[in-house]
Amino acid sequence: MNRPQVVIIGGGFAGLACARGLAKTKADVKLLDRRNFHLFQPLLYQVATGALSPANIAAPLRSIFRRQKNCQVLLAEVADFNTVDRKVELIDGRSVPYDYLVIAPGSTHHYFGQDEKWEPLAPGLKTIEDATEIRRKILSAFEAAELLQPSPARTALLTFIVIGGGPTGVEMAGAICELAKHTLKNDFREIDPRQARVILIENSPGILNNFHDSLSTIAKKSLVNMGAEVWNNTRLTEIHEDHVIVTQDNQSMRIDSHTVVWAAGVKASPLGKKIVDRLGAPASLDRAGRVVVDKACAIPGHQEIFVLGDAASFTTEDGKVLPGVAPVAMQQGRYVGELIAGTLKGEAISKSFSYLDKGNMATIGRSHAVVESGKIRLSGGIAWLAWLFIHILYLARFENRVLVLMQWFWNYLTRNRAARLITNVESQVK
Amino acid sequence: MNRPQVVIIGGGFAGLACARGLAKTKADVKLLDRRNFHLFQPLLYQVATGALSPANIAAPLRSIFRRQKNCQVLLAEVADFNTVDRKVELIDGRSVPYDYLVIAPGSTHHYFGQDEKWEPLAPGLKTIEDATEIRRKILSAFEAAELLQPSPARTALLTFIVIGGGPTGVEMAGAICELAKHTLKNDFREIDPRQARVILIENSPGILNNFHDSLSTIAKKSLVNMGAEVWNNTRLTEIHEDHVIVTQDNQSMRIDSHTVVWAAGVKASPLGKKIVDRLGAPASLDRAGRVVVDKACAIPGHQEIFVLGDAASFTTEDGKVLPGVAPVAMQQGRYVGELIAGTLKGEAISKSFSYLDKGNMATIGRSHAVVESGKIRLSGGIAWLAWLFIHILYLARFENRVLVLMQWFWNYLTRNRAARLITNVESQVK
Repeated sequence: MNRPQVVIIGGGFAGLACARGLAKTKADVKLLDRRNFHLFQPLLYQVATGALSPANIAAPLRSIFRRQKNCQVLLAEVADFNTVDRKVELIDGRSVPYDYLVIAPGSTHHYFGQDEKWEPLAPGLKTIEDATEIRRKILSAFEAAELLQPSPARTALLTFIVIGGGPTGVEMAGAICELAKHTLKNDFREIDPRQARVILIENSPGILNNFHDSLSTIAKKSLVNMGAEVWNNTRLTEIHEDHVIVTQDNQSMRIDSHTVVWAAGVKASPLGKKIVDRLGAPASLDRAGRVVVDKACAIPGHQEIFVLGDAASFTTEDGKVLPGVAPVAMQQGRYVGELIAGTLKGEAISKSFSYLDKGNMATIGRSHAVVESGKIRLSGGIAWLAWLFIHILYLARFENRVLVLMQWFWNYLTRNRAARLITNVESQVK
Repeated sequence: MNRPQVVIIGGGFAGLACARGLAKTKADVKLLDRRNFHLFQPLLYQVATGALSPANIAAPLRSIFRRQKNCQVLLAEVADFNTVDRKVELIDGRSVPYDYLVIAPGSTHHYFGQDEKWEPLAPGLKTIEDATEIRRKILSAFEAAELLQPSPARTALLTFIVIGGGPTGVEMAGAICELAKHTLKNDFREIDPRQARVILIENSPGILNNFHDSLSTIAKKSLVNMGAEVWNNTRLTEIHEDHVIVTQDNQSMRIDSHTVVWAAGVKASPLGKKIVDRLGAPASLDRAGRVVVDKACAIPGHQEIFVLGDAASFTTEDGKVLPGVAPVAMQQGRYVGELIAGTLKGEAISKSFSYLDKGNMATIGRSHAVVESGKIRLSGGIAWLAWLFIHILYLARFENRVLVLMQWFWNYLTRNRAARLITNVESQVK
């Protein structure tokens, strides 16, 4: 009589795929999220640099599940788990019972133990608010510079620092270059935005280290051609309101800048630790704070509790831990959806999850990208088209797909970034 | 040798038109605004109800003036005026000298002496932040209701109150009806959004009182057909977190609601009072706090200082004070631009400003509007098309015109409101 209750925490790539996989089952699916939308995080940097609006890359969860009547979206924040009575406890005191629990809360920024000091000074790129805050900081720096005479203070305002040479850092650095060198080039009267410095700080000797060496070299060259400075073997040691301190070859250096973007590290959601604390051994976290899961993406000893995406530590056959990227999350979500659907139909599914790695891609700027898939390696315009195609394919699942495509195409043609609004400025509102 | 300095305060309809009119002159134009964008305020209600994104109705001022090399945009807030040395003083301590000063700072909400108590409870619709805040409140009310059992508390969450039966109030009430009765109708599992109450509170016996009686009657009928309640002859006396008190026929009534939208009154920017205080008589304010201007839109006795748009009190030949609407602001801006341009060329222009009233229009919802122009009165679908056409014509001056049109058309076809994002929720960020 009672329908099986599946509770999914998080409406990201993993949670979405899992909930969809349960569409034709007799389960009641409850999708819990703190936000009322699914966010296409890989394009957040386009919002941060004024090329797209938040609504272009976010779709209301309720729209997505409008027709899936067995799925209820709940705007809620999880406080804790009661694994004895099988309930998820919410911060407002209510609780949601589960038969199957899918935990896919994602990750947040990791400031290497300096969270409280660094986070307000160097916002990262995880939420819509992060993106509009970075947009505000970047655009406000140009505005403030326009009001000054040539001076070290003005140079500092026109210096932009991106911490971390992974895909997000490279995309951000490339996009800020485009903004400064092209979009804004005729917009000011006192300053020449093309003289802005964009500095990418990376600890290691290369950038995009998960790519083949040849591609990371090309990426670095492209970024430099676009006008960015790539500082490798450089360690960030301090961040302040108006400068950062970095170390190269044991030498400390100061860079004056008001705009620092964080793209250096993420940590798993604290919900992982909560569920492990409640369950006790054999449930455990890995060193990065992710929940160790078995071949079925479940917590060992608890075949009814799954952890997916960035919050999970899944070790493949050949001993590698899967990275926190969208394709892993989507494939895990789809797998667990099928697994639960099968179980509900009474089919025992013994197939383990296996990740099909379709490759890596990163954009560097307008019509520059690097793509690798198996033995195929692409760069330049053709790679950019491949990148665009794949992203549009995914976005095609959003309702506003046509518009995002139009907006991109328009921006591409005109190098325009029409969404460069400075919003949520306390002192300037009203 | 020195180029004449024209300082324009405010990048709204008036300021924009004035600055453009000075394009081919030898003047240096400085356009001061607290925000970095021009906002198409008449469509703010579309942002507040999730149909459009902020960037769809806002264009960066720097984009607009990119090619007008004699115009410099300054992101700045005016603190005071020094009319002796002819300088505008900014809050950061700097000052901007002027030969001609154009004051067009617009208006803000007016809560009839209850500003501090009512403003946080009943946001109005003047800024992008106002619109996203109202959007957050409306959408969050539905979300909170979904978590409750049928109860008075749930009914209160699903009750939306709009204060004021002018064009903005009517448009808001209509848009909330559309959202509840159509867009969201399949989105929830516990509540039926179609049962939401939308109540328009209006002091007077009618709505859209500046229209011909026949049109206000039609507008009221349309609004009621869409599912709104129109409470005429009703005075608002109190606003609280979870209810309002209104008075009808000397009877007090309580309405439980968490979402109150203010569309009842505006007051002129405080900059008007500042300039009048500095100049002294014959400069004066009218009872609504607007600066009284002469036939040339200038302050009497100061032919170098103009006040335009919502901040100005301009009395026509036949003794009427012009209303605070976009066409008045645009025409005044254009006129003063021409006037200053003529003066700079040494042409004495004696023509007074005269307002060409092209008519009034207001939308009530999808494909409903009322339009009057001279003796022509339209309502229904044809009026809506006229409204759409006029608005698109204006928006065509924005760079992102194609996209707004596409978005509208898409929303119209699908009754979709893709931008229904709940953002800037402190407790939910990160």
